[in-house]
Amino acid sequence: MSETKSPSAASSIQICRIMRPDDANIVGNVHGGTILKMIEEAGGIITTRHCNSRQGERCVAALARVERTDFLHPMFIGEVAHVSAEITYTSKRSVEVQVNVLAENILTGAKKVTNKATLWYVPFSLQNTDKITEVPPIEYSSPEQEEEGRKRYEAQKLDRLETKGRNGEVVMPVPTPEAYTVEFSQSSLIHLVGPSDCTLLSYVHGGVTMKLMDEVAGIVAARHCKTNIVTASVDAINFHRKIKIGCVVSVSGWMTFTSNKSMEIEVIVDADPLVETDKGKYRAVTAFFTYISLDKENKPLPVPPLKLENEEQQKRFEEGKARYLQNKAKRLSEKERQQ
Amino acid sequence: MSETKSPSAASSIQICRIMRPDDANIVGNVHGGTILKMIEEAGGIITTRHCNSRQGERCVAALARVERTDFLHPMFIGEVAHVSAEITYTSKRSVEVQVNVLAENILTGAKKVTNKATLWYVPFSLQNTDKITEVPPIEYSSPEQEEEGRKRYEAQKLDRLETKGRNGEVVMPVPTPEAYTVEFSQSSLIHLVGPSDCTLLSYVHGGVTMKLMDEVAGIVAARHCKTNIVTASVDAINFHRKIKIGCVVSVSGWMTFTSNKSMEIEVIVDADPLVETDKGKYRAVTAFFTYISLDKENKPLPVPPLKLENEEQQKRFEEGKARYLQNKAKRLSEKERQQ
Amino acid sequence: MSETKSPSAASSIQICRIMRPDDANIVGNVHGGTILKMIEEAGGIITTRHCNSRQGERCVAALARVERTDFLHPMFIGEVAHVSAEITYTSKRSVEVQVNVLAENILTGAKKVTNKATLWYVPFSLQNTDKITEVPPIEYSSPEQEEEGRKRYEAQKLDRLETKGRNGEVVMPVPTPEAYTVEFSQSSLIHLVGPSDCTLLSYVHGGVTMKLMDEVAGIVAARHCKTNIVTASVDAINFHRKIKIGCVVSVSGWMTFTSNKSMEIEVIVDADPLVETDKGKYRAVTAFFTYISLDKENKPLPVPPLKLENEEQQKRFEEGKARYLQNKAKRLSEKERQQ
Repeated sequence: MSETKSPSAASSIQICRIMRPDDANIVGNVHGGTILKMIEEAGGIITTRHCNSRQGERCVAALARVERTDFLHPMFIGEVAHVSAEITYTSKRSVEVQVNVLAENILTGAKKVTNKATLWYVPFSLQNTDKITEVPPIEYSSPEQEEEGRKRYEAQKLDRLETKGRNGEVVMPVPTPEAYTVEFSQSSLIHLVGPSDCTLLSYVHGGVTMKLMDEVAGIVAARHCKTNIVTASVDAINFHRKIKIGCVVSVSGWMTFTSNKSMEIEVIVDADPLVETDKGKYRAVTAFFTYISLDKENKPLPVPPLKLENEEQQKRFEEGKARYLQNKAKRLSEKERQQ
Repeated sequence: MSETKSPSAASSIQICRIMRPDDANIVGNVHGGTILKMIEEAGGIITTRHCNSRQGERCVAALARVERTDFLHPMFIGEVAHVSAEITYTSKRSVEVQVNVLAENILTGAKKVTNKATLWYVPFSLQNTDKITEVPPIEYSSPEQEEEGRKRYEAQKLDRLETKGRNGEVVMPVPTPEAYTVEFSQSSLIHLVGPSDCTLLSYVHGGVTMKLMDEVAGIVAARHCKTNIVTASVDAINFHRKIKIGCVVSVSGWMTFTSNKSMEIEVIVDADPLVETDKGKYRAVTAFFTYISLDKENKPLPVPPLKLENEEQQKRFEEGKARYLQNKAKRLSEKERQQ
Repeated sequence: MSETKSPSAASSIQICRIMRPDDANIVGNVHGGTILKMIEEAGGIITTRHCNSRQGERCVAALARVERTDFLHPMFIGEVAHVSAEITYTSKRSVEVQVNVLAENILTGAKKVTNKATLWYVPFSLQNTDKITEVPPIEYSSPEQEEEGRKRYEAQKLDRLETKGRNGEVVMPVPTPEAYTVEFSQSSLIHLVGPSDCTLLSYVHGGVTMKLMDEVAGIVAARHCKTNIVTASVDAINFHRKIKIGCVVSVSGWMTFTSNKSMEIEVIVDADPLVETDKGKYRAVTAFFTYISLDKENKPLPVPPLKLENEEQQKRFEEGKARYLQNKAKRLSEKERQQ
């Protein structure tokens, strides 16, 4: 990498920070994703700075491509990650950045290179975010250096075009359900339970689980009515079994009922103790969330009615309606009592 | 709530913090999940403190149940959320906590009650996390107060038992695929793009997308081999289209190939611009991640071979094998060049 | 600061990152607390690295004191914060670190120094977290440099002892207050210390505590003057006792003094080890923060005078005034010296 060094000091940057429990898995290995994120932050800063170094339209760099990246050594909690980036080639509309990552153990002083990455960026105008701006050229220490950069540029351009073609293929059958059906808005997420999610006993805080449930329910509601939605209420939630650190939590939600101005979403939480396989996946929590849709003045909007497609959905809809009417009656009687 | 106040000052707590951009959706409404998380944090602190107030086994409170909760008013970025909690009933092994949430606009001074919630906690021993410890009783201001609490206790106990029964039912058909097949480890997550994920142009940082991709790929790998896994390499990634704030990002991964000591996982990223519906869902990124499985000394472990179930999977396996052999040959030739 | 430079390259570090929406208030001004946290991270890394640079017991640096720090310019979302730290003095058991913070606008290329801070650290053994380990001496470029360092060391030692005495004072009660009184803007928050807040020794990073203090002080200032406020300076902060994971931290702040264009807020930090109750709640840190109120062009606004309601408040106001006048005189004499 050092052979392709650009002479201008402005086009080099170093970022570093200490690795925390949340950056790693339970054994202490830093996630590859944490490192990729730091690499890209360094690349984004250096490219945005370079592309604004001349008078002209202000712009922000967007990542266009990362070349194949190897993780040479694992990194651990408590180590300091040093990420250094430099610009090694510029075409008219793109910038190549080389990034090195070094892990330093500040207790023993040991250092090891963990990654070398090559990223390609394209600058977009701040005024018109669809417009690509022109890249100021860097100076090369030799014509050979520039020529090698140009070859890398041509090679990646070809590969990008090829992938773009392949990308049009349906890699996996994406089911396209009819609008306003249960399937249309159904959503789910997985989350690997980390240290910050847990109490001193290494079990997930109930509040963390509820936040994930609300996140899924909110996406179901937004997918259904495509407007600004807010949580109106949550039914009683029972936490039947605790969820331990290192588990993968799957949270799934689907719409069960719509009234004129509200949507009810059922959310289930399954826990999968990846490593202790004897335990197996289990259902930890279930609950019903109610959402309303708001206009720009925060006034409730009408909600598109849910389209039911089978008897099971019909049954769930009726159950949801019963809960809805019961809560409505309860609210009314409370109001009367207060008067 | 004030009628059921416990006299002991030790059993009341106040937490507050200012609402930040990441606590809210793009319109500025604070997520219900953020509020639920704060409510539970207050409840957990007050209960843990109370249950350790007497000499004896040290313990940590675990959330067992949240009663139905209404969100009376929306809360906004920049407002200060005040969450106050107090213990209102104790049985031998559980604690009832009442929580009020108030939103304060510190610029205008306006305050509004946004939530009232009731939570039930059970204390678990620090030494033996399966053991429930005894709860020190609180003092009541009147026998009526205690009696009302006891009624709430019995009512929730009944409801929990009922739900437990219902919870055993298959709420949704959970397909249980055969071990080591593609379906067995296939995983996906959704993520609502927030302000901290984005550049000044309100487009997602490439690094944020890569972190989500690595998270999904890592869960696929861990589900397959049930051991400590780490990212070994990432194939070239092309970012074909930008992803805007407010989009829901779906990240899915499945295993395509296994060698003796490595697993290849394909990851796709789809973006769904919830509100600007004219745009529709689109494929933004695809990539191949390679993982290895490590033992306790960070040495590579053998990987269970992937079971293929159809021609499509067979074809993808062969493609993965070709990539694997190509990279192996490349690494060898680089080594030779360096010698 | 450059006059007191230590020659060893190993004892210097640079960290930088881009400022995100959650680092700032709604107007886009980066919180002083975010900057204090980065400053402490740099100081902690460099000191831990230095103290482990010789064979011997492994140790982790704990923040003992921050000298008075001025915030010379506001920093904004999208700017890159560059934090550089170097060790400038070592006693047998403590390390002095000088930190400079620079804000870089990567769109315009503009750079400005926003902070210069001096921190004192003490290294604690990894094996026995109550034991202070010995600090390897640094090399000085001249005897004068060492002598000046020794003077700073003696001065801060004296001040730390004095503050320790003052630290026992009482907190105030809370009723329903008249505008611009002390009680009117008084605020507090609690935070449960989690793994990401902690060093390898499971004690809270000093920077995390300072961020919480700045958050409370900022809310006090905003409640008082209902405008956009920014941290102008922080008085010397002494960290008397360490705070362990699992503790509940209570941070309280109230206004002590107002000049025409500034507000002084006293902030105290109490730690409550929920589970190890034999230890009891204790005062961990106290400090004075100074805020100014800004208009839309980031020009200082007049501040409503603080209404004093009793002799205690009057006494605190006079003490605040003395600190204000002393700092003003100090700034003036520094300016004269530079001319």
